Parts: sequence; C-alpha cells; structure tokens
Amino acid sequence: MPAIAPSPDQQVHVTATPLPTRLFEARNTTLALVRHILPEDSVVQSMPEVSPSKWHLAHTTWFFEQFVLAREPGYRPVHADWMALFNSYYHSAGPMFTRARRGLLSRPTLAEIIDYRKQIDERLADLYLRIPAEAERDAVVALGIEHEQQHQELILTDIKHVLAQNPLLPALAPAPTGADADITAVPLRFLDGRSGASQIGHDGLGFAFDCETPRHAVLLYPHRIANRPVNNAEFCEFITDGGYRNPLLWMAEGWDTVQRQGWQHPLYWADDLQSEFSLHGPIALAPARPVSHLGFFEADAFARWAGARLPREDEWEALAGTQPVAGRFQEDGFWHPRPAAHDSGSALQLFGDVWEWTASPFVNYPGFQPLPGALGEYNGKFMCGQWVLRGGSCATPASHIRASYRNFFYPADRWQFTGLRLARNA
Amino acid sequence: MPAIAPSPDQQVHVTATPLPTRLFEARNTTLALVRHILPEDSVVQSMPEVSPSKWHLAHTTWFFEQFVLAREPGYRPVHADWMALFNSYYHSAGPMFTRARRGLLSRPTLAEIIDYRKQIDERLADLYLRIPAEAERDAVVALGIEHEQQHQELILTDIKHVLAQNPLLPALAPAPTGADADITAVPLRFLDGRSGASQIGHDGLGFAFDCETPRHAVLLYPHRIANRPVNNAEFCEFITDGGYRNPLLWMAEGWDTVQRQGWQHPLYWADDLQSEFSLHGPIALAPARPVSHLGFFEADAFARWAGARLPREDEWEALAGTQPVAGRFQEDGFWHPRPAAHDSGSALQLFGDVWEWTASPFVNYPGFQPLPGALGEYNGKFMCGQWVLRGGSCATPASHIRASYRNFFYPADRWQFTGLRLARNA
Amino acid sequence: MPAIAPSPDQQVHVTATPLPTRLFEARNTTLALVRHILPEDSVVQSMPEVSPSKWHLAHTTWFFEQFVLAREPGYRPVHADWMALFNSYYHSAGPMFTRARRGLLSRPTLAEIIDYRKQIDERLADLYLRIPAEAERDAVVALGIEHEQQHQELILTDIKHVLAQNPLLPALAPAPTGADADITAVPLRFLDGRSGASQIGHDGLGFAFDCETPRHAVLLYPHRIANRPVNNAEFCEFITDGGYRNPLLWMAEGWDTVQRQGWQHPLYWADDLQSEFSLHGPIALAPARPVSHLGFFEADAFARWAGARLPREDEWEALAGTQPVAGRFQEDGFWHPRPAAHDSGSALQLFGDVWEWTASPFVNYPGFQPLPGALGEYNGKFMCGQWVLRGGSCATPASHIRASYRNFFYPADRWQFTGLRLARNA
Amino acid sequence: MPAIAPSPDQQVHVTATPLPTRLFEARNTTLALVRHILPEDSVVQSMPEVSPSKWHLAHTTWFFEQFVLAREPGYRPVHADWMALFNSYYHSAGPMFTRARRGLLSRPTLAEIIDYRKQIDERLADLYLRIPAEAERDAVVALGIEHEQQHQELILTDIKHVLAQNPLLPALAPAPTGADADITAVPLRFLDGRSGASQIGHDGLGFAFDCETPRHAVLLYPHRIANRPVNNAEFCEFITDGGYRNPLLWMAEGWDTVQRQGWQHPLYWADDLQSEFSLHGPIALAPARPVSHLGFFEADAFARWAGARLPREDEWEALAGTQPVAGRFQEDGFWHPRPAAHDSGSALQLFGDVWEWTASPFVNYPGFQPLPGALGEYNGKFMCGQWVLRGGSCATPASHIRASYRNFFYPADRWQFTGLRLARNA
Repeated sequence: MPAIAPSPDQQVHVTATPLPTRLFEARNTTLALVRHILPEDSVVQSMPEVSPSKWHLAHTTWFFEQFVLAREPGYRPVHADWMALFNSYYHSAGPMFTRARRGLLSRPTLAEIIDYRKQIDERLADLYLRIPAEAERDAVVALGIEHEQQHQELILTDIKHVLAQNPLLPALAPAPTGADADITAVPLRFLDGRSGASQIGHDGLGFAFDCETPRHAVLLYPHRIANRPVNNAEFCEFITDGGYRNPLLWMAEGWDTVQRQGWQHPLYWADDLQSEFSLHGPIALAPARPVSHLGFFEADAFARWAGARLPREDEWEALAGTQPVAGRFQEDGFWHPRPAAHDSGSALQLFGDVWEWTASPFVNYPGFQPLPGALGEYNGKFMCGQWVLRGGSCATPASHIRASYRNFFYPADRWQFTGLRLARNA
Repeated sequence: MPAIAPSPDQQVHVTATPLPTRLFEARNTTLALVRHILPEDSVVQSMPEVSPSKWHLAHTTWFFEQFVLAREPGYRPVHADWMALFNSYYHSAGPMFTRARRGLLSRPTLAEIIDYRKQIDERLADLYLRIPAEAERDAVVALGIEHEQQHQELILTDIKHVLAQNPLLPALAPAPTGADADITAVPLRFLDGRSGASQIGHDGLGFAFDCETPRHAVLLYPHRIANRPVNNAEFCEFITDGGYRNPLLWMAEGWDTVQRQGWQHPLYWADDLQSEFSLHGPIALAPARPVSHLGFFEADAFARWAGARLPREDEWEALAGTQPVAGRFQEDGFWHPRPAAHDSGSALQLFGDVWEWTASPFVNYPGFQPLPGALGEYNGKFMCGQWVLRGGSCATPASHIRASYRNFFYPADRWQFTGLRLARNA
Repeated sequence: MPAIAPSPDQQVHVTATPLPTRLFEARNTTLALVRHILPEDSVVQSMPEVSPSKWHLAHTTWFFEQFVLAREPGYRPVHADWMALFNSYYHSAGPMFTRARRGLLSRPTLAEIIDYRKQIDERLADLYLRIPAEAERDAVVALGIEHEQQHQELILTDIKHVLAQNPLLPALAPAPTGADADITAVPLRFLDGRSGASQIGHDGLGFAFDCETPRHAVLLYPHRIANRPVNNAEFCEFITDGGYRNPLLWMAEGWDTVQRQGWQHPLYWADDLQSEFSLHGPIALAPARPVSHLGFFEADAFARWAGARLPREDEWEALAGTQPVAGRFQEDGFWHPRPAAHDSGSALQLFGDVWEWTASPFVNYPGFQPLPGALGEYNGKFMCGQWVLRGGSCATPASHIRASYRNFFYPADRWQFTGLRLARNA
Repeated sequence: MPAIAPSPDQQVHVTATPLPTRLFEARNTTLALVRHILPEDSVVQSMPEVSPSKWHLAHTTWFFEQFVLAREPGYRPVHADWMALFNSYYHSAGPMFTRARRGLLSRPTLAEIIDYRKQIDERLADLYLRIPAEAERDAVVALGIEHEQQHQELILTDIKHVLAQNPLLPALAPAPTGADADITAVPLRFLDGRSGASQIGHDGLGFAFDCETPRHAVLLYPHRIANRPVNNAEFCEFITDGGYRNPLLWMAEGWDTVQRQGWQHPLYWADDLQSEFSLHGPIALAPARPVSHLGFFEADAFARWAGARLPREDEWEALAGTQPVAGRFQEDGFWHPRPAAHDSGSALQLFGDVWEWTASPFVNYPGFQPLPGALGEYNGKFMCGQWVLRGGSCATPASHIRASYRNFFYPADRWQFTGLRLARNA
C-alpha cells in the first residue's frame, strides 16, 4: 500500500477547484475522448508499446481502485480477477499480465469496462462523501488525476498508431473547422538563452511528479535557442539533401535503426512526402506545421545537419520558466500540431503542438527521492536509456503541463507527437 | 480469373438439394455460428496462424465475389479497397494484406462485414435468378461452399485459441445438455487392416478437392489398426511415464519443439492435468474422451511410447472407405470430442470428434493435377512440410467430410481438434 | 551401449578388402582431405547447420571411441571431458554440447584433435589385434566407416560455406588440371521410366543404412525421366524468365523463403550470373555444368517452370538400379560438378556430380526398424520435414554410394552439392 | 582523410619519451600480449560485441595505415582488399565488413596478420626517418597509440569471453606468483566528497580523447563516497538476500534483462558462488577481491539494496583528480582485480583493478567538439544509451588512464572488468 504524505515539493495546493470535482472532470474527459473509438478499435495493440484503448480505460480505473479504494481495510474489489489484467508495471501491487499481450484480451468488453469505470467512480464519490479530506489519500488522488491525463494522451497516440496500420487509413474523428494549412511559417530565429547559474525543477506550487524534484541549481553555458519548432518544410530539406542516407549525421545506434527499419521520413508520412496520416485521416503535408512523429535519433540528426544541436533540458526549462503555459492542447479537438499564426518576437510554441526532444538523458536530479511505497515505481525505474522531452503536445490536456514537466521516451520511439527545437552554442 | 470445367473427378453431382439452396444454407450456417462472438472477440489474432473471426467472415465472402461474381465482365466490387484485405494467399487474384497482421485491422467493423456478406449474398441470389446454371461457375460455387465450411471449422478453432489466451478463460457458448463425462471407455483393441493392392483417392461421386485425386492403386502391407482414438486417460499415462522428458520417443525436430516451447501436455490442458479449456469454458479432463489438441510430434511420440505407430493415410482410408460417414460433428453444438457410448465391435469414431494424425506427409497423388487458374493455388502449393490428418472433428460440418478427405497441418500445430489412432505392423 | 547384430538386410559381407583395412583407409582419407585446411579455418561455424572441420575430425573419432571402444567394460576414455563436446545428437550416449555453438570452441586445437585421432586409431588397431572378429562390433565398425565417409563429404561442403563468407573468396585447394568448361552439353531428352510393380530398398548385399530397408514392392505410374541433370544454362533461362519473381512457380513456404532470404540465384553464384564460388576459388559459370547448390524449393520451382516435375525416389531408384555405380566422386579431387563428356544414349550422371532432389519426403519404408540401441537415433528421428536426394555428388566417396542410398535435407538447404533431374508423367 | 591540428586541449606534450619510441613500444606490447593466444583462439567471436584477437591485431594496424600512412598522396596499401575487413566503424573511411560476422573470417591467418603488422611498422619507421615531426600526423599517431592500448584491454576481455564459452574452461596464461586470496578486506567507509563548484574534464596536459573536453565547471551536491570498491563478499550478501529476485531493486529494463537472460550472479561466476572463471583459469571466489563483470544494472541494483547509490562521474572525478594515478594494471600480468593490501585512510583503488560504473549517462560536455574529419566518429556517435565508467582496470595499460578518462558501455554489458564504488547523498 502506498503511503504518500504531502511534502513541500509535492503538496496538493488549494486551488479554485476542489479535488473531487477535478477528479470526476478528468474521468469524464477520458470517456468523452473515446466516443469515436468503436469496440473493434478498442481491442487492438499494434506494437508492444501501444496499449488497447479498452486497456487504458480499465488501467486508469484500476489505478484508483488499487491505490485509493483498496487502502481501506477489508476492501472487496469490483472484479478481483481483473486486477492482474490491468496492473501495468507495479510489482509492489501484485502480479501483472504481460504488456506485449494486452491486445489478445477481447474480454472484458468495452461496455463492461465502461461499467467498471462507473462502479469505481461511484465508490470514489461515496468515499469522498464519507471522508471529505485525508492528506495521504488526496495526494494519491491528485497523482491519479495526472495519471488519468497521461493516459488521455496515450489513448490518442496509441489509437493513431492502430489506425495507421490499416490500409484503409480510417480517421478517428472529423477535423474541426478552421484551416491552418495555408499559414506562412514564422521565420526561424535564434534567441539568446539564459546563461550562468539557474534553478530548475519544480518550485512546489501545485502538483509535480517526483522526477521534477528537487529544485536545484544548474550552470548554463552561453547558448542560443530557436524561436519556434522545426517545421515540415525544413524537415523536407533534410530529407531531399540525403539526411536519411548519410551515416555521419547520426548516432551509431540511430544509423543502425535507420538501416534496420528502413526509415526514410517521419512516421506517418507518405513515401512521396506529400501527405501524412492524422487522427483526422490523411492530410496534405503543410509546410509550416511543426514536424512531428520524429524519434530522438531523427531530431538529433536533423540538428547536426542544420549545424545546430538540441537544447539541454535545463536550457529549455530556463527559457520556458519565464513564459506563460499557453498553446494548442488536447481540448482544441484538432489533434495535430499547427503553425504559429504570427511572430511575437519571442519564443513561440514552447507549450503544446509537439513535445520537444532535448539533449538530456532522463536521469534523476541531485537529491531525488522516489515516492514512497508502490508509487515509487512510477518514474524512477525508467531512468535508463530514455531521453527527456519538454512542453506537451496537441494531445496533452492543458492543465497537465508546466515548465518543469519531464516526459521521456526511448530514442527510436516515434508514435508520440514529438518534434524538436534547435539550439546552438553561443 | 479461374476457369474450372467439371471433370469426371470433380463434377458437381445432382443431389436432392439444388446448389443455390446449399450455398445459402452454408452462408447462413456461418452467421449462426458467430452469434456468440462479440465485436471485441472478432478482431483478435492470437498467433499468425489464427485469423480474426471478422476476417473469416469477410474472406469467405470475398471468395465468392472474387471467383464467382467478378467473372462477369465489368463487375464493380462492393468495396474495391477491401479486396486486398481479404485475399488470403491467391497471388493470381492480386495483392494481399500480410497474414500475420490481420489482427491489426479494427476496420471494417463486424457489423460492416456482416452487411458486406448480405450484399454479396444478394448479388449471388440475383446471379442465380438471372442464370440458373452454368457449369464452370457452378463448379466454383460448389468449391466455395466447401471453402465456407472449412472456415466454419476455423472460426471455432481460432476463437478457441483467442479465448484461451485470456486468464479469465471465457466460454464462447454454454454447453448443450447431455453429459458424457462419466462414460467408461470402450477397451482399446487392434483390428486387422486391409492389405494388398487397394484403391485410394476420390471416386468421383460428389465433390472432392483436387488433392484427393486421382484415385489410384496402392500396396498395403499387413497391419493392425486400433478400434478407437487414444483417450485422455491413456495420454495421461504417457505424461506420467515421462513422455515429455524422454528425447528417445521424439522426432529430433519434435524434441526441439518440446524444449523450446516447454510442452508438458496437450494444448489447453491445465498443468495439474485435471482440466482443459473448451469452447464451453474450462471442463474436467474426462478419461474416456479422445485426447485432442496434439501436434503430430506428440501423436508420433505417444505411438512410439505405446509400441505402435501412426497409420499411413492409405491404411486409414482403406478402412474408412468401408464405413458410413457418421459421427459427432459441428451441428451437435457440443464442440469438444466425446467418447464412444458403446463398443460396436468394429472401428469406432473414424469420422468426427478428432482429426487423426497419420504417418503420411501431405504430397500429391501420382498423376495429380491442380485446379486450373487461380484456384490451382488452393492446395498444391502447401504440399511441403505438412502431415495428413483424416476423418473430421467435432468442429467439422457433417456434410463436409468423406473417407478420401485429406486435411493437413504442420507437425507442431496443435490448435485444431487433433488426436490420433494407433496402428501396428502385423 | 548399442547392440547390433548382423541381420539379413545389414550383414557385413566378405569383400576383397578386410574390415580393419577399410577402416584405416577411411580414417587416413579423412586426414588427407583436410591437408589444405588451416588451424584458423578449422574453427569457424558459418551457420548452425555447418560444423567446424576440427569438430568433424573429433566427432568421427568420438564415434569409434563411444560405440566401439567403450563397449569394453572398464574402458577409460582418452579425454573424458571431451566426450560431451563431440557427441552430435545421441541422447542415449550422454550429454552433448549445443550444436549451434560448436564454432565457439577454440580448444582442443586442430593439432590436439589430430593427436586424438591417432590415439583412437591405435586403440582400434590394438583391439583388432586382440580380437580379430566379433560380429556386433564389426557391424558398428562398418557403420562407423560409412559415418566417416559422410563426414568427409560434410567437411568439404562445410568448409566451402565457411570460405564463401569471406570477401577474399579464398580457394581451399588449387583445381586439378583438365578443363571441362568448354564442353558442349548433351541434349536434354526424356527416357521412359520403369512402370508397374517394382522393388526398391536395399537388396542385402553389402552395407546399407537402416532407412534403406526393408526392400519392398512399389507401384510405379507411367513416367519419363531426363537423361541428365539440369545444367547452368538451363537454370539461367529460368532466372532471366523471372523464375525467382513469380510466386505461382513456388511452394508457399518456398516463396516465403525466397522473399525473406532475398534469393535471386543458386547459392554461391555471383549476382551477375557470370561466376560462382567453388572449393577451387571463383570460377566462370560454365553453361554445361550441372546446376548445383539449389534448395528443394528451387528444384521444384524450376521443374514446374519447365512443365515437368521432380522424379519420385522410387522412380529414380528403379532407373538407377539398372546402372553401374559410376561417376565423378570425391577421389577425383575436382570438387565441383562437371558436364557429361558425351551422350551414351541412356541415363547419364545418375551417380556423382550432384545429389538430385526428389519429389519424396524422407519417411520410413513399410516395415522399417531402426537400429537397436543408441544407433537407432542415426536416421529415424530425422524423418520429418526433409526431402530425399539420390545419387551422390562430386564430394561423395565413390565407395559410399549405391542405388538405394537415401540422403535427406531440409527444403531450404543449399550448401550441399544439390541439383535436379526432371521427370514427367507419361 | 583526417586533419587534426594540435589544440590547446589535445596537444601532444613533450615528454621524456619521444613519440616514435612510444609508438613502437605500444605496438610491441600488443604482440607480447597475444603470445598465449593460439591460431584457433584468435578466430572466435563469441558474441557480436566481442572481436576475434586476430581482428584486433589487424584493426589497430589498419588504423595506422588508414589514418597515418594513407595521408601521403599516392599511397599503395599493403593489402588493398583487407582495408574493408579491418575498418571497424568509420563510414568516412570507406566500406566495412559487418561487425557481427568478424568471427566468420578464417583468412587472413594469424601469421599473415602478424606479418601485416610488421610491414606497417616498417613503413611507419621509415616515415619517421623521412619526416621526424609533423604536427597533424603526430596528433593522429598519438591517438593511434591510445587506440592501440584500448584494444590491448579488449584483446584480454574478449579472449576471456571466448574461453569462458568452452566447457573445458581453458586458462589463457598461468597466474603469476604472489597470492592475494587470503587478504582481509579493508573495512568499507564513506568519505566526504567534494561539494560546491568544481572543474571537471581534461586539463590539457598530455593526451585526452575529445569526449573528456572541454574542461568546465560543475556544481557538486554534498555527498559521501566509499573508500574502496564493493567486494565479492558484499556482493554475495546481495545475492543471498534475494537481490536477483526482487524487481523493486532494479531499473525496469534491468529487471527485464535479469528475467530474459536468467542472471543469478555476475558473469563468470559459478552457480554455486564458490568460484569464478579468470584469464588464469577457474579460481576460488576470494571474499576481499573487488566484484567484477557486473553490468550497470547490477551495480545500480546493488547500490539501491545497500541504501546507497552510484557516484556521478563529476563526483568521482572531483575525488580522483586529487590522487596520484596508481594501482594494479595490465603490466602486472595478473589479469584479475585484487583487494587493497592495507587501509591508507583515504580513497583506495580509484585507479586499476575494476572500472567503476557511475550514475552518469555518456553524453557530451557543454561546448564539446568532436575531432575533425573521420576521427570525429571516434566517440561522439556513441553518446546514446551508454553509461560512464571511470578509473581503469587490471587489463588497462598504466599509461593509458587518468582522472578525466571516460569509458562507456551499455548497461547490460558485463564482459569488461567492471565493478562499482558506493556513494550517498550527505
């Protein structure tokens, strides 16, 4: 059983919205998000890293059942034999069904899982009626809300991967109106980054994951950083200049991946570089849109080709920490990155549109302490072989992101909305 | 386009039931068979050899569209972009979607495919109204009916494999009433097999696949053959005697498979040898029931352990050709092999209950000619590495089987209802 | 311990040459054969199916130590800790080192293994001095001589595969003088094959492997069979006609192999179809030479393309049984197939030059009994998934082959000197 | 062609020993090192990461031929067709033979390669006679010497892996006299680490690899660091406490590796934890010897189990930079880590015995510039997925190591002499 006490770094702050309200809002948002997903869609696992939509719906529910409801002595699970099915990777919480085989589970059905959500939500509501506040529990509920939001993004990116395997290239949902395809790109410029001693990591106001803490000093070397993410037109230049055929541009392991996987362009692009698959079906490849669905290897190779480099995560955070958290997010309903409409003169699109690969491996901060108990497995055990991404994407809930947020994926992972921003030594 | 003329060996005989009637009966039977399969079930492919139920429903329909309807000049497919999805392996009929990736296709949905079936059935009905008889077409339709029946069996065996991956072990359908679990096994006896010159292969009365022809003479050596299939109790003896741990009982490749796959008992048996998974959920392991879900490797090893051997296919057919085609089949609705109720004194259960592995590799008969055109790909190209099975199973439609029928699978395949009957040199 | 009594089918016949003389001749021939193989060559295992030369030298020696010398009570092995290293696949004879890892053994060295051979040969000589004749032992020694000869052929084909991996394409040995490259091919003609009842299998005169027995009657259908093997020029026609790109010519599993392995021509051919690698280094592709290094899949596809088929093994044996065992063999020292010098009017090159793939899977003959004891593992356990080849090759010792000899390999195996002869239904 | 100018960070300093003398000393040391390696040993590649000894000998020679000799216009290689065989990974230098297939090359032989070394050494000597000094060339030669030394270590660690595959467990060389097995371990103590601002990276005095530069400021947080590496006795406690069975101690990817590879103890340890394989054959597991042949995953898990962590590389360097570079190295001829003989009160064994895994991924330093030209491929392209190790080992040449030296391997790599030192947050 987890035992999480609010700490200075992770305490749940009093906000305008009470915790239970935020909880059920998040839970309902998830349900709204899957309204276009059919029972057949909800089963498929297109690669080991992708989970079926059905599984996401159940796992986020299991999270609350396992870590919140089951904290009460004598708790009887809604479906005891489902618990192992929907445990993702918490060894402390008991056995778990093999991740790569999630797509073999046709039962429980989508309807049964939605009913399971309903029952757990009712039990949570009942719990809050009985016990309106309890510090440890509320810390876990706050974490569960963020966890729910992470899976909202994964539901979108995973179903995109599923649908993209289908030669019929079905759209998940119609695109909302409001074209951006003819927007002219804001000219790429390099801005002075902050240098010298700086502080990064979460400042303790509001929620943060353990891996964002403790806040600590870093030394930043003089550098410049681009005003916006790299766009499709720029990435096309890299391709037509032979970027995918020149080993000197790539990490050794990246070049192996290019060869072995036959990479010739970002994931979801058509081979003729004229269109790309989106959650709204195939769309023309708009030059000004931020390039996305790149692996770290491609982002790194592009930067080298461009005579630049990726920003380090501390450089990125030092810049982003000075900006409001604003951008295009999941709530917009257009689940594809878009160009900035006009040049503000300062850094654009740090938040939303595309996650930005950094030059920083995902490791702990000096003095890092994982969460106590089972939830200590949340982040710490993944601090090996992955790279940090920053800023959120068009699939991230707006309230989920912040300057100190550290996302992380393996360098060959391409199915998230992942792009890049250039940097340079000054 | 296939061009199949009725031949003496393959002509469509006048039977009591007109061909279109048989066609729509077969089509409706398929639909009735999937009534327990939910949309989520219908998507899953649990291994490359298994196809999703949804795919079976569409592929059998495609077969009639491609090989019957599309023979008419100017034919417009119902869904042109579905044709490649549901072509199984006919290179002559155009491109095909990779077999091992069928489980990645969530669309078209189950409902859309059932609608597709309806539309093709209507077109077929319309065609028969317009042109009541045409020899070449009717030969293909007759083949299509048999093809539909083969997929009826596969729908059951494939969905069984899918459901078996699920720790919840869901039943596809409730078992019909009528217990057999307490039946005492008929004593195992060896009967004299027929020896000397004999004829095997299809005699030209009614439908046959090309691989059953031509009928030809064979020389049979003196042998004895068991009165019934091996049962669960007998197979348990093999296991408890260390059968799965003794390499001297196995083909070299079989022993490799045992080691690599960790085989310790037939597929679907519980490790405690007390129960097995069936399409009606987990059931007790009844001693007298024919053992099933064996690979050739296991059947061959068991026979060696028993001081016997598998019958050759000509020995089997020489015996079965003297018997009526009667037994327990798909229509019974109990999709699991059952023991014989009483001893007739002669050979029991040659037809139905379990397919019986033979000692014969699947190769062509002397003088074999594959079907002309695309349908020549039906059987001939699989005559490598597979072994012949005879007699049909509890999942085979009764009207589909005959003494000359040659089924074939790879020696490690275990997900069909496959068992064995012993034989011995005299 | 094996216990082999001479049987009517397998007795060791009195020949002009005494058994011990034949034994040491065979042993010395092996040593002579490896004189070009350097210590570095002798270690490499280029694929799991290939064994290092060093291993062959030790394994054939182990065979005599394990099955002949160790029959004496109280026997002390020369190197007790080597026994498992050089046991190939005899579970009855104790543990064995993993086949696919033989290339990881640098020790014992080549010199140490040659010394081991010497010690075992001395012990064998001593044994024959002490006990000049003993029926059971002598049957095993006779088998051991044939076993030694089989590995002589494998030493050549395996080292060829090893050297072919090296971009330097080193020759094992210089070619003996006597050119054949400009010989004009004998025209291809089809001869009448024998039909009706016939006898195949070993007749009991001289040595035979268990799988050649018992001699038994077969029924042969009217057919015609080619006067000589297919040659390089004919196979080039198949290639330039798109043979490797047309799935309709191939077994389904063969086509998968072509795609997966990227086959475009026989093994060891240059991509420009102008030269091939031989044990005497790269040589021009001579049109009249029998094509070799084909898998069954390629032989079968070629025959289909040519409007013909492969002969069944009984058809082949019925023809070859009427001919003297004469041809080009290992002793010639030119280890590459050669064209027939002139047309005799009857069947040419049935023996020597290239093994000929047949249409027959390797299964037992009716009434087959494996050898008793450990040597029962010699052939019987490989009767699954392999196809019969007949006639021997340019790497086979002349005294090793006969009309009833059944060689066997998997259908994708190409590293032996394997070609084909066409046949047709009459 | 590389073009390397001495830079402030990388200039070749005047030392007591002239460069050509150091060059030929290094070359001769390599030859002396392989005197126990037999021709058969020199061929084997026991896993893709291991190279045959023969290949190391040729590759280091190729390095001088390609990057030093071939800088002269009109240069004719000694063996033009060997160049691709012995190019390791320099795309700029032309094609290269596939790394994982190096063990398939029996030719050139060991003797031919030693002759090749001789010829190149003669050409180098001749070059130095003709042109005693040239800045760019001498920078490459200085790099080539260090490169030669790196491969000296790899020759030892690779041949150890090769010999360990052999059930005979052959020793490469007899152990020199002088026992250490009964030494009592120095008690483990934690020393105060340096904190606050510090400088790490190469200071420009003598040779350094590009990845050690530029020297730059870092911020160190208060921490404590162990006085010596973890020893075998301590690691045995981890094992007997269930360390390899407790997922909560491991990185997620480490736990996957443990499960998939069946790890139960360090590489080369016997399953009974009583002995380990060394280059001097199997030896008893001495409690006080530093544990070695650990992957990062094991080092990290051990540290977590011990309530500690691995030191960051800057923490390590800040400590080691204050110490003389002294310890047990390759020259000792005992190629196995040994315990410290007595407690000095300060940090022991920072250099030599075992490489120490750090908590730092191998990435570039702020302002890093790879070497120009082909030699830019030396380090930079491997800065992904690997972890830094510090301090050198018993297989490292003494003159090769320094406080700023950064070695790097993948977290599952265990075939180097790799151990760990504990650290803790203060």
